[in-house]
Amino acid sequence: MNIGGNHYRTIWLDAEDPRVVKIINQLALPHRFEIVELRQFSAALGAIRDMQVRGAGLIGATAAWGMYLAVLEAGEGSFSPLEEAGQTFKAARPTASNLAWAVDRMLRVLAGPPKGRVERARREAQAISDEDAGYCRRIGLHGLRLIEQAAERRKGEPVRVLTHCNAGALAFVDYGSALSPVYAAADRGIPVHVWVDETRPRNQGASLTAWELGRYGVDYDLIADNAGGHLMQHGMVDLVITGADRVTSRGDAANKIGTYLKALAARDNGVPFYVAFPSSTFDFSMEDGLAEIPIEERDADEIRRISGKTASGSIETVRICADDTPARNWGFDVTPARYITGLITERGICEPSKQGIYSLYPECEPEPK
Amino acid sequence: MNIGGNHYRTIWLDAEDPRVVKIINQLALPHRFEIVELRQFSAALGAIRDMQVRGAGLIGATAAWGMYLAVLEAGEGSFSPLEEAGQTFKAARPTASNLAWAVDRMLRVLAGPPKGRVERARREAQAISDEDAGYCRRIGLHGLRLIEQAAERRKGEPVRVLTHCNAGALAFVDYGSALSPVYAAADRGIPVHVWVDETRPRNQGASLTAWELGRYGVDYDLIADNAGGHLMQHGMVDLVITGADRVTSRGDAANKIGTYLKALAARDNGVPFYVAFPSSTFDFSMEDGLAEIPIEERDADEIRRISGKTASGSIETVRICADDTPARNWGFDVTPARYITGLITERGICEPSKQGIYSLYPECEPEPK
Repeated sequence: MNIGGNHYRTIWLDAEDPRVVKIINQLALPHRFEIVELRQFSAALGAIRDMQVRGAGLIGATAAWGMYLAVLEAGEGSFSPLEEAGQTFKAARPTASNLAWAVDRMLRVLAGPPKGRVERARREAQAISDEDAGYCRRIGLHGLRLIEQAAERRKGEPVRVLTHCNAGALAFVDYGSALSPVYAAADRGIPVHVWVDETRPRNQGASLTAWELGRYGVDYDLIADNAGGHLMQHGMVDLVITGADRVTSRGDAANKIGTYLKALAARDNGVPFYVAFPSSTFDFSMEDGLAEIPIEERDADEIRRISGKTASGSIETVRICADDTPARNWGFDVTPARYITGLITERGICEPSKQGIYSLYPECEPEPK
Repeated sequence: MNIGGNHYRTIWLDAEDPRVVKIINQLALPHRFEIVELRQFSAALGAIRDMQVRGAGLIGATAAWGMYLAVLEAGEGSFSPLEEAGQTFKAARPTASNLAWAVDRMLRVLAGPPKGRVERARREAQAISDEDAGYCRRIGLHGLRLIEQAAERRKGEPVRVLTHCNAGALAFVDYGSALSPVYAAADRGIPVHVWVDETRPRNQGASLTAWELGRYGVDYDLIADNAGGHLMQHGMVDLVITGADRVTSRGDAANKIGTYLKALAARDNGVPFYVAFPSSTFDFSMEDGLAEIPIEERDADEIRRISGKTASGSIETVRICADDTPARNWGFDVTPARYITGLITERGICEPSKQGIYSLYPECEPEPK
């Protein structure tokens, strides 16, 4: 991610002090670019819980680095504090499968002999980070084909992509999933315009996706979450690409609440609807996303209150409803595979079906009983 | 509308001074209950433009009272300033058909002899107000049947109604359209729970519908606009009822942006989707809503900025995105008749089709050519 001429990842081990993990504090964006140091397991956990970091891939990477910090704290002794740390991470955010995936991967490496555990933890967390960034880059190259095809149909006019929430570089270690094809197209000079859903209640579209696209120089417009259907009815969207937090073996995809509504509108108007994610987002233990994927219910204050910058430049939180307003706040919904045109993964694009998915990931197909 | 033990309409002629029209300033809600006096045509126009009043029926009634104020100002002389005032009102908000309907109705009455015009204007504006309130009351009684039927299926558990934007008493002179059946059910002790879409970007659900339901003592929860699909997927919605700003002869309905997305989710999950409105909302000159209904595009700052109450009690506006964020802001979308289960009007419930509509409004059916 290029920010002010410097290349950043969203999380990295400090080059000077290998006991310090650094992150971009996403709660401060778009109003302030701030780097936060994580020196303890509990700080990494807090960063995930408070959503200084968010996004499927980045949650996974942060948990991986958090496990590294836990090893530094525990020393190369007993394994049980590490198992406990892993459980605590997994419980922090229930929907994204990357979190459990990264913790389990770290625990497998750490389960061996105590000696050398620090080094193994560092290497594995770095590998998870590098892999996430690399996978996202490849997602961009695969998704690029879809934008190129749309560009041919558009004959020089910008390809209009709609996205929901933030599945950009900020949601992963770098590049992003849904936005990676957009960046790949921009790199090649293909004109692209992105419709950015503001993504209530936490406004990740307004505060993160719009900010990212602006820094990259990609043309975009921020819109209300309510607007996408109208745009599609009027032929103003060529392609929808969203991210995912968990994808089942048959291709049902949990993503930010509201994604399902856009998938319905895409289907109703013949607009292709793609979901982009690295394979760490698959949960092959689940088939029926609606019945099986746990959906996080969050603090209702996220509905009642909104933070932003005042005219005088301070950050202020305002309540948009009466004092005594009851509210409910689910973080994700599930888009059934039948509404998804294709899945964009690091290995290519496939149909949202067992057959399609196992054709790209044959090693994940269960043995016939 | 009962507010603090007093009955209010949203607009009325002052009992003491018949040169003064009073309105509830909806920009101040839910944080402050404020009555504003309109003494001139230009003040009524400003109230519509700035959205101190909004909602299909109330815009119509305000334009009617505004025409009355125009007559007071122009005196009982030339007709042409009144025609001009009418044109100005019609151009103030393009989508709601009640506005043009009310202006044309006033102009027909005013076109007669200059003498007695003030009295004719007062009477007609009062008639439009009374009719709007009366029609909304009847919409409630017709819609009540749907809630009663749902209540039987729910066997004592609350009937869960989802609504979008505010089509309550505040959107009309009284009672409301979509919420009128809810109030009728509450009056009869039928347990009802309303899912209130916050309705970005202007948050009429959060600031008006939630406030209204709270004052009436109806159980509700405020939710993000993104949440309705998830709720319907999980069987948590028995009935969707929304209002409308313009309905064509075949039953296509323009309503607040995002309504169409809820209609799609209702269809996908077998949830009945009703649109409630008085006949003043019909536009029999139009058939294909998507192609013909003009959709208002509003100031993009409504997307970028949100107002609310700070912890210290002041009203503050905050920007939710970076300074330089481009945004687009359409106010309405069109739900095609095929996604609507039925239309709830003051004359009863009908199918969203020419046949259904003309069976209730035979006098509006064009003569065969």
